[in-house]
Amino acid sequence: MTASTAKRKLFLGTFVHSKALSELEYLHDSAIAVDETGKIVAVDKDCGDLAKARETLLPRLGWNEADVEFVQSKDGEFFFPGFIDTHIHASQYPNAGIFGSSTLLDWLNTYTFPLESSLADPVKARRVYARVIRKTLAHGTTCAAYYATINVETTNLLADLCLTAGQRALVGRVCMDSALSPDFYKDASPEAGEEATRKCIAYIKQVDPNMDLVRPIITPRFAPACSAELMKRLGKLAEEENLPIQTHISENKNEIALVKELFPPAVLARATGDESLAKQHESTYAGVYDAFGLLTSRTILAHGVHLTPSELKLIADRGATISHCPCSNSSLASGAAPIRRLLLDHGIPVGLGTDVSGGYSASILEAAREAVLVSRHVCFNAPRDGERDKLSVEEVLWLATRGGARVVGLEGKVGAFEEGMEWDAQLVSLGRVVGEEGDGGMEDEVEGERGNVDVFGWESWPDRIAKRHICATQPNPT
Amino acid sequence: MTASTAKRKLFLGTFVHSKALSELEYLHDSAIAVDETGKIVAVDKDCGDLAKARETLLPRLGWNEADVEFVQSKDGEFFFPGFIDTHIHASQYPNAGIFGSSTLLDWLNTYTFPLESSLADPVKARRVYARVIRKTLAHGTTCAAYYATINVETTNLLADLCLTAGQRALVGRVCMDSALSPDFYKDASPEAGEEATRKCIAYIKQVDPNMDLVRPIITPRFAPACSAELMKRLGKLAEEENLPIQTHISENKNEIALVKELFPPAVLARATGDESLAKQHESTYAGVYDAFGLLTSRTILAHGVHLTPSELKLIADRGATISHCPCSNSSLASGAAPIRRLLLDHGIPVGLGTDVSGGYSASILEAAREAVLVSRHVCFNAPRDGERDKLSVEEVLWLATRGGARVVGLEGKVGAFEEGMEWDAQLVSLGRVVGEEGDGGMEDEVEGERGNVDVFGWESWPDRIAKRHICATQPNPT
Repeated sequence: MTASTAKRKLFLGTFVHSKALSELEYLHDSAIAVDETGKIVAVDKDCGDLAKARETLLPRLGWNEADVEFVQSKDGEFFFPGFIDTHIHASQYPNAGIFGSSTLLDWLNTYTFPLESSLADPVKARRVYARVIRKTLAHGTTCAAYYATINVETTNLLADLCLTAGQRALVGRVCMDSALSPDFYKDASPEAGEEATRKCIAYIKQVDPNMDLVRPIITPRFAPACSAELMKRLGKLAEEENLPIQTHISENKNEIALVKELFPPAVLARATGDESLAKQHESTYAGVYDAFGLLTSRTILAHGVHLTPSELKLIADRGATISHCPCSNSSLASGAAPIRRLLLDHGIPVGLGTDVSGGYSASILEAAREAVLVSRHVCFNAPRDGERDKLSVEEVLWLATRGGARVVGLEGKVGAFEEGMEWDAQLVSLGRVVGEEGDGGMEDEVEGERGNVDVFGWESWPDRIAKRHICATQPNPT
Repeated sequence: MTASTAKRKLFLGTFVHSKALSELEYLHDSAIAVDETGKIVAVDKDCGDLAKARETLLPRLGWNEADVEFVQSKDGEFFFPGFIDTHIHASQYPNAGIFGSSTLLDWLNTYTFPLESSLADPVKARRVYARVIRKTLAHGTTCAAYYATINVETTNLLADLCLTAGQRALVGRVCMDSALSPDFYKDASPEAGEEATRKCIAYIKQVDPNMDLVRPIITPRFAPACSAELMKRLGKLAEEENLPIQTHISENKNEIALVKELFPPAVLARATGDESLAKQHESTYAGVYDAFGLLTSRTILAHGVHLTPSELKLIADRGATISHCPCSNSSLASGAAPIRRLLLDHGIPVGLGTDVSGGYSASILEAAREAVLVSRHVCFNAPRDGERDKLSVEEVLWLATRGGARVVGLEGKVGAFEEGMEWDAQLVSLGRVVGEEGDGGMEDEVEGERGNVDVFGWESWPDRIAKRHICATQPNPT
């Protein structure tokens, strides 16, 4: 259910959304009115059914019942804001779930570059991109920040397919021109990389002129894959076009060492013509992006596992954001990002990313659960006061919705149920309650086998959310 | 599909099982013959279909086709040994997936003891136990080492239900009599604890005289919940009856400190009457169990996260085994167990446990995946040579089958497909391949939406196993 609705709609039933970082709000017997443009015009906590709506809400809105479509959540169902995947490589989807024993830099050469390169074939690209959109939507992702490949034609195809499927998306044509990139898969020059990016921007502006659903995003792959000149051009382009930026940062210790080696102060100074800036940044990973104008309040930095205090300060000062990708960070043995400290001590906006295919799953709920688990590893490895590193279920659901909305630049537009926001939601079923209190035996269970856990009926709403929403991460049938 | 088969059977198709710790064997176009007692009498790698079987295998076995039932795996299906859950609290199943922010000792008081206590009610117990058996079977668990509760009647009910469902099980009546146990849920005395355990043993011997499917297991909850006298009695009882033992060890640092405090050398010396032994064990957690005769080659120790070198040596010397429960260890922020080092450096047998409800899922595949991920946390926290801490997909599947078989005392009987073993298997479907190579678009996907990942058709068998078997952990429909 994304924004575009031809008709006024009234949703009735149970709504759950994040009120604050650590607080979910449960709106039972409530109503949300959505106008013909897809905007929420009323959230009514005292209007649980059609009769009440006729009596109070419709007259208040001045709506005729005949013009309104009604959608009622059933018993055991609730509306939840659509999830936001702040970091996903659409082009790597076929490799999701293939656990390598390698770490980041090997992984790219063995698994990633050959697959991405092969998606210059529009037939194969259509097959892969259609599937990843379908799967992420099935998992409740109504908005995704996608990396495509360096290929212009099939990057544009990804934008087309998102539009067709009604999935909100930031679509990035990947830029990479450095020696780290293989000969068979790289931009011929910084100019060529910029030019190709401009073509994708122009295309997306043409197919979605108001960028209601699909927006281009400037995508330097990551510093080691880009020349200084390419990053400089992309920084300027982002500013000129007022566009968001996505890239990777501080995922893995070897990668960090590589950035230091590739961009010593002298290189930064030469590239930027600003010696004092180059010196000041001391070739930190964040400093390199900042030197090229890539560290902005519209920048999504994936990972941020090993950021130094000075980098954290710089990122916070620029208002740049972090996409936390716990499934990937664990799979590739990158490390455990101290997310609660980023949020609370540094005030850095954070969302969740699946990072397919470094991450093994296209599900943001899977990322949410792993975020809970990884935060416990941060906790027991913290030198002191580890308890405050633990993310709660409420907090990871905030990251998956409101946190993500800030990261992709849609704060106040999606991620929650508030007047003035877009109606961007998923209908979640908790599944059948297993029998009823006092009932029993094996014979009463004929369905509801989906998922890892069962709801017995006596659980509180927060417990039900934890059990069925966080632990049972299979997709809804589409 | 568990042991009892009324008729001779011939299974045809693809079989996958662990050949060694790091090696899966893929038997395509093969046949496995199972006699009327459920035993594998032939594994034929050159017999892929019925015609070939008629020609070669049946004559060799001297079997008449009319007496044989044939089962052929379909395209995209394969037979895999049933999973073994070496540590699961059947009585805590309703709490699975409720993430607390607490750690072990709080968790017990808040979530666990009240629920376990309530299962003295046979109606409620039947409802919970029937469900956990059904769910674990749906997840491919054909054998489980269960903790029930202190209640005799409903522990016996759990054994009955396992028998009815055909699930192999070790069923443990929980023993706990110390001050740590709440007044509403404890054994009145060491004698009472022993007596109740004897009743459960007698009952199980009566309902399954040869212990083909269900066996009793001596279950002192964990050292802090038991008096020295109770543990001493249980150690003797296990020896006298030649029974397996299960308990917890070294899960959490506070718990370890508590054991040290509760069982100083003087207490051990008094309880065992053996001062030198007490001194020698220095009140380590493993030493406490050993002092009471509870550390044997039939002992399953759940967790073992923080074991010291001397404890590891003691455990290895006694031939005791570890149940690795990664979902639980992460959820409860207990720590990350260095499993590969236990296996390879210390030669300690290890299996996987879901540890419901410290663990959030009754799926051994979920535990397998988390074992992979947690091993990477061990890796990047290891002071040096961390690479060898990484568990591969092949290794966690070994833990889930052959490793588990050793832990529950069924080595050579279940866990693989070898002549002389029981036929104890699950039929796994890899699901529909997404279109075909060169095919494309959104329109060709009408089903196969289950799971987190898709198989595109070009993947190798090891990659398919990783994608669909490890990453898509929803249960098979029953």
